[in-house]
Amino acid sequence: MRGRFISIEGGEAVGKSTQIRLLADWVKGQGLDVTVTREPGGTESAEAIRTLLLEGGTDRWNARSEALLFAAARADHVARLIRPAVEAGGWVISDRFVDSSRAYQGVAGGLGDEAILSLHRFGSEGFMPDCTILLELPADEAARRATARDGANSDRIGGRDAGYHASVVAAFRALAEAEPQRFRIIDASGAADEVHARIVTTLQPLMA
Amino acid sequence: MRGRFISIEGGEAVGKSTQIRLLADWVKGQGLDVTVTREPGGTESAEAIRTLLLEGGTDRWNARSEALLFAAARADHVARLIRPAVEAGGWVISDRFVDSSRAYQGVAGGLGDEAILSLHRFGSEGFMPDCTILLELPADEAARRATARDGANSDRIGGRDAGYHASVVAAFRALAEAEPQRFRIIDASGAADEVHARIVTTLQPLMA
Ligand SMILES: Nc1ncnc2c1ncn2[C@@H]1O[C@H](COP(=O)(O)OP(=O)(O)OP(=O)(O)O)[C@@H](O)[C@H]1O
Ligand SMILES: Nc1ncnc2c1ncn2[C@@H]1O[C@H](COP(=O)(O)OP(=O)(O)OP(=O)(O)O)[C@@H](O)[C@H]1O
Ligand SMILES: [Mg+2]
Ligand SMILES: [Mg+2]
Repeated sequence: MRGRFISIEGGEAVGKSTQIRLLADWVKGQGLDVTVTREPGGTESAEAIRTLLLEGGTDRWNARSEALLFAAARADHVARLIRPAVEAGGWVISDRFVDSSRAYQGVAGGLGDEAILSLHRFGSEGFMPDCTILLELPADEAARRATARDGANSDRIGGRDAGYHASVVAAFRALAEAEPQRFRIIDASGAADEVHARIVTTLQPLMA
Repeated sequence: MRGRFISIEGGEAVGKSTQIRLLADWVKGQGLDVTVTREPGGTESAEAIRTLLLEGGTDRWNARSEALLFAAARADHVARLIRPAVEAGGWVISDRFVDSSRAYQGVAGGLGDEAILSLHRFGSEGFMPDCTILLELPADEAARRATARDGANSDRIGGRDAGYHASVVAAFRALAEAEPQRFRIIDASGAADEVHARIVTTLQPLMA
């Protein structure tokens, strides 16, 4: 039996990593094999690209180099980890996937959605999640969670200005509305276990 | 005045780096500003990608990730070094450029020329050399030069088998024949100063 590939998307600090931990435990509790992974990264080679992407000054990479690096990392991640695990019948849950490139580099970064999808077709044969959970949270609440966790620290992409991040959030919403079959928009406010319950409800049909 | 962008191409150990040193001195001798650079690399960020590309086992990158990494490095190299230097009126001589990606990843690697050109249009607006020197040398003579220099050592790409390298050499020839305006095919046999004299003769018209 073919497994399932689930991606979790959303802006910074909306609770993606927290929900993935809870979701992975729940899937395991259903007796299923589950692999948790993340982007950029997930394989040894892709993690080396992640280091290049997140280190260095804000202008270390121009938008086009950045999009190409994400696509290179994703190609490795899909070919060596995600696709084999799903074909072996497992569940794979990824912290971000191609929709992050579409929202960050494609829309907020101005490269256009078609350009990002075209890189994804080239690198990864356009491999798509069975289901994408979009976590949504008001910007002020996400900022509170980020500050509670990191203080003033952030990485090369997290450190971009508020306008950029607002544009990312709007882009995710537009992507989700354009593909209602694949996306589930989840309200990420409230306690972590409340958000988890919403996610489980929406994923239940995939267990069939 | 706009300068000139010259790329030097060819298989392993045909004498590219040697001829670039001689050519750069000659261009300088004409009173022109000259920048010597190389691919993958040429800028700080692109050199970091070069390290990823040339290190590690033969299977560290699949063909598609590799092509995306080359395109990412080239995008930085064109935007931050080549284009500004040429626009400032200088000559830029690059040890390999997009034709290497076309020959190695596109043809020998089986991704197709159109895919590589499409990545180049995305990353670097399809920026092309004014003139490309293709150095040609019989395979046995190139192998002798490589062994004289390196002994048994070679990097991740240089270490691929003879069939791969023969396919690269044939691909370069086909690219050159398809674009006779841009390419100059130069016989790379004989002493370094003889090869240099052939190159100077072919570049003379560009000095006008
Ligand atoms: N439902 C919640 N209520 C309050 N705080 C939360 C909730 N979920 C997560 N947090 C906290 O908010 C912070 C951000 O959560 P998390 O790291 O899971 O978000 P993220 O979306 O993975 O962030 P990033 O985009 O930076 O990877 C963490 O300190 C986490 O403990
Ligand atoms: N015309 C020549 N005759 C004999 N030996 C040469 C000649 N030109 C270069 N060499 C020697 O051959 C070796 C390979 O030359 P070089 O490093 O210039 O080639 P290359 O094309 O840049 O190689 P690579 O593809 O590995 O970068 C060097 O040891 C160099 O000194
Ligand atoms: Mg996280
Ligand atoms: Mg060389």
